[in-house]
Amino acid sequence: MSDLKDSDWEWSGFREKCRRIIFLSNRPAEKLFDVLLIVAILMSIMVVMLDSVEPLRLRYGTLFNWFEWILTVLFTLEYMVRLYLARSAFRYARSFFGVVDLLSILPTYLDLFIPGAHYLMSLRVLRVLRIFRVLKMMQFVGEANQLAQAVRASARKIAIFVFAVVTLVCILGSMMYLIEGPENGYTSIPKSVYWAIVTLTTVGYGDISPQTTLGQLFASIIMVTGYGIIAVPTGIVTAEMTRVSRVVERELSCGSCGKDGHGNDARYCRSCGTELPDRNASFAENAEGD
Amino acid sequence: MSDLKDSDWEWSGFREKCRRIIFLSNRPAEKLFDVLLIVAILMSIMVVMLDSVEPLRLRYGTLFNWFEWILTVLFTLEYMVRLYLARSAFRYARSFFGVVDLLSILPTYLDLFIPGAHYLMSLRVLRVLRIFRVLKMMQFVGEANQLAQAVRASARKIAIFVFAVVTLVCILGSMMYLIEGPENGYTSIPKSVYWAIVTLTTVGYGDISPQTTLGQLFASIIMVTGYGIIAVPTGIVTAEMTRVSRVVERELSCGSCGKDGHGNDARYCRSCGTELPDRNASFAENAEGD
Amino acid sequence: MSDLKDSDWEWSGFREKCRRIIFLSNRPAEKLFDVLLIVAILMSIMVVMLDSVEPLRLRYGTLFNWFEWILTVLFTLEYMVRLYLARSAFRYARSFFGVVDLLSILPTYLDLFIPGAHYLMSLRVLRVLRIFRVLKMMQFVGEANQLAQAVRASARKIAIFVFAVVTLVCILGSMMYLIEGPENGYTSIPKSVYWAIVTLTTVGYGDISPQTTLGQLFASIIMVTGYGIIAVPTGIVTAEMTRVSRVVERELSCGSCGKDGHGNDARYCRSCGTELPDRNASFAENAEGD
Amino acid sequence: MSDLKDSDWEWSGFREKCRRIIFLSNRPAEKLFDVLLIVAILMSIMVVMLDSVEPLRLRYGTLFNWFEWILTVLFTLEYMVRLYLARSAFRYARSFFGVVDLLSILPTYLDLFIPGAHYLMSLRVLRVLRIFRVLKMMQFVGEANQLAQAVRASARKIAIFVFAVVTLVCILGSMMYLIEGPENGYTSIPKSVYWAIVTLTTVGYGDISPQTTLGQLFASIIMVTGYGIIAVPTGIVTAEMTRVSRVVERELSCGSCGKDGHGNDARYCRSCGTELPDRNASFAENAEGD
Repeated sequence: MSDLKDSDWEWSGFREKCRRIIFLSNRPAEKLFDVLLIVAILMSIMVVMLDSVEPLRLRYGTLFNWFEWILTVLFTLEYMVRLYLARSAFRYARSFFGVVDLLSILPTYLDLFIPGAHYLMSLRVLRVLRIFRVLKMMQFVGEANQLAQAVRASARKIAIFVFAVVTLVCILGSMMYLIEGPENGYTSIPKSVYWAIVTLTTVGYGDISPQTTLGQLFASIIMVTGYGIIAVPTGIVTAEMTRVSRVVERELSCGSCGKDGHGNDARYCRSCGTELPDRNASFAENAEGD
Repeated sequence: MSDLKDSDWEWSGFREKCRRIIFLSNRPAEKLFDVLLIVAILMSIMVVMLDSVEPLRLRYGTLFNWFEWILTVLFTLEYMVRLYLARSAFRYARSFFGVVDLLSILPTYLDLFIPGAHYLMSLRVLRVLRIFRVLKMMQFVGEANQLAQAVRASARKIAIFVFAVVTLVCILGSMMYLIEGPENGYTSIPKSVYWAIVTLTTVGYGDISPQTTLGQLFASIIMVTGYGIIAVPTGIVTAEMTRVSRVVERELSCGSCGKDGHGNDARYCRSCGTELPDRNASFAENAEGD
Repeated sequence: MSDLKDSDWEWSGFREKCRRIIFLSNRPAEKLFDVLLIVAILMSIMVVMLDSVEPLRLRYGTLFNWFEWILTVLFTLEYMVRLYLARSAFRYARSFFGVVDLLSILPTYLDLFIPGAHYLMSLRVLRVLRIFRVLKMMQFVGEANQLAQAVRASARKIAIFVFAVVTLVCILGSMMYLIEGPENGYTSIPKSVYWAIVTLTTVGYGDISPQTTLGQLFASIIMVTGYGIIAVPTGIVTAEMTRVSRVVERELSCGSCGKDGHGNDARYCRSCGTELPDRNASFAENAEGD
Repeated sequence: MSDLKDSDWEWSGFREKCRRIIFLSNRPAEKLFDVLLIVAILMSIMVVMLDSVEPLRLRYGTLFNWFEWILTVLFTLEYMVRLYLARSAFRYARSFFGVVDLLSILPTYLDLFIPGAHYLMSLRVLRVLRIFRVLKMMQFVGEANQLAQAVRASARKIAIFVFAVVTLVCILGSMMYLIEGPENGYTSIPKSVYWAIVTLTTVGYGDISPQTTLGQLFASIIMVTGYGIIAVPTGIVTAEMTRVSRVVERELSCGSCGKDGHGNDARYCRSCGTELPDRNASFAENAEGD
């Protein structure tokens, strides 16, 4: 890749080809690059994770170090190539994936110069986000888009819901602090609020739990309430998804007889048998762009 | 604000302006007041919470005290202004937010006169409810109304469901008291009922858990049952939300061609392209009133 | 009530009136009886629960005993009156509520003759089921019926789902027994299966939890799977409820213009303004029968 | 069964009859065989489970052993008969149920020759899967198919969701490792990721839980997020099930008047009263094949 600059003839053609390989995923060569990239990312995450396990680090530390450096150099090269090939290097550097790319190589270099930065090494796990870029170019994008759209459409309602829950746990936590008091583990209001969250979300660690009868009665009420409350975000998202699926169905009408209401996977009109337009066609086109 | 009474000329105009500032949220000045109020409320809640953390109180206790008093005085002034500006001072004092406003300043004064009332200080956390008043005047009211409406429409069904769950945990708890007995932590029926609630709602603290084989078998049945039961409130709320979203869609028909079934975010008729009436218009108007 | 037999004149009329009071809930006298009954039941359950709390029994044991006997005698009288008034005493005695009525008075008498039967006393908590009889006659029956219908319609699917879950936890539990072994708390396959249920239902007591890395990896997979699985019963019940709500909407068509699709709470046709037939009318009639 | 080969006359008729008995479940004799098989499977699973309980093995070990061998011999015979009767022995041996059949008898024989294989004995619990074969031939297949279809249709979306969750827990786990560190139980990134999964899925064992204030704040955010996230798979499956139920309703139109939109359990057209075609007819036919 270092001889990229030497290829003066047929410049734009070659550069365009590289850009295709890196940014798209249709032809075999482009897919191969993606698969290799995913394998490299997964391996590097594995190394980061295993390196944090004390006994493994003591035994295979040097090996992990070697692996890490090889992968970091490769990722650095990839980052530079992307910077070079992008239509606007600055826009790429500021984009979400540009920042992720940088964050996933920086800690290794920082560790070299600043010894205290060792803990930052676990930031390298952000590399896992880079897999999404590859997926973005693949088939999954259609479904993911639908999901994201339903979540986005419900975002406002969910925000209100989360705010209501936060208010509720503040009040419940403070009341529990009054009821149980510091001698039963509810040492402060923030800790009681933490307990209320643990309880309302039905996580229930049990590191703090009500000891007095009144506290247990109060906790019971919170739990039964939480049982009902959990229905709300589910209701929001489900109603939205049902609506989208309904709209999609209705909008796909047969070009020949005009009948709509075909199933999501229908390929022929159920009334006159004419082939229906392909629902995923538009997605494929969108996925081409970066 | 203390010179409010001196402004004799143009009285109703000035008073009306103040009322607008405090009760509405459309013009910049009105919005600024709301933002300042929210900041003050959040700060005061922060102080209440941090003040309950032992090490922080020992170190910054005096600072917290100062902050608390400044904010309490401000809130007291605000309460008095609201009382004065409200169309009916008595109706305001009895309203939900009137009581919350009073409850959020009372504990500080009580603490001054009655030393034993210190624990009541955590009641000040109720100030968090005051944020809702501000939100009520803002954009979020539409979505919150829809949510509240769906919950209210399902309230009866949820009440029956909660009652059935309470009955169930009473019976299950008593049976578990019979099976496990006091020697395994199930010291009384209320405690066993508490355990049954903790289990059925899938919170699972683990402070009490079945020890005998029969108890574990019985608990397993409860858990699998609870798994199915959790579906019921979700089903209730979701069905209601889906219905509301369906009704909204159907009721919004194009004024030109009469076609209905437009998406929730549609702005133009999907059949003839005429602009659709704004769905949120009525909300905006409602939000104006207090 | 003991002088029931003396009233020879106007016999059927008086008996009919008693039957109305006990079995129905429309007129004030009938409602009063229901309310008194619910109060008595709730009090007796309270006594049963508090009696099981050691410190309270030691202090108020005699009081609880008195209360218990007074209520038991009242319930016995009520049982006998019901037996006497029922159209078929035998059918009543065999019916669900007849058995519950008997079970809620028997333990107290058994305790008198068989000292060892003291533990059976907690069976008296079954009295809570008697409240449903009263509710059955009241307004709530409509909503409860809809809920019960949706659950019944999905019963088969839920049964299959529960069977699939039981199969899954058997296999997962056995595998975990292989992976973790008795030294980490997974002392036998039934115990491992119990753990798998606790995990899959997201209860998570924490009395047994994976200790080895492989075990934690395996548990992670189970948990993420359980996350997806919990969606299935919810989906079943919700789809059924949405369907019922859709059918109800469609079936209620305006008698004047034939338009259907009115909201569940609509009282007038949204097209021509004619009053719609009352949806709850049929329920009220059904509730009359016992 | 060993004299199967001797019956030369009417060969195909007899063999066909056996095949019917083993592979179908319509006539009494065929049903009897299925019931006996289920009883044998359930008994053998019971033996496997009880055999793993230390005190029971010490006391009834020999009895369990006898039972195990009798059942294994029976299952071996059944396996051989199936191999013999199947249209293609090789295809059966490679099929899902063929492998399960083999796996459920192999461990017992292996244990005989290789003493160290004792732990593999718990693989016998896979016998529980064999019950599905019997169910497959029975009535439940319709509902199970609908469930499976809804799950399969949402599989892609759920896969994306699971992948997003895995990414999320990797990042959250690593951050928690940074925040809490090894001294609070978060000894390595994989362990922190395990904790993040336990928390996000609301299982919450409590074997590891945040100790620092910052950690508890971060955990609170994770929990509230997880609360919203749990809505997504539920939304996916529910929307799919609602859609299927809608399509089924629409597709079943009356042969006489063409009206559609009948309830799922409707047997007569709600408009003209003509009998509707049986929805489950096609299932019954499919269930015949193996």
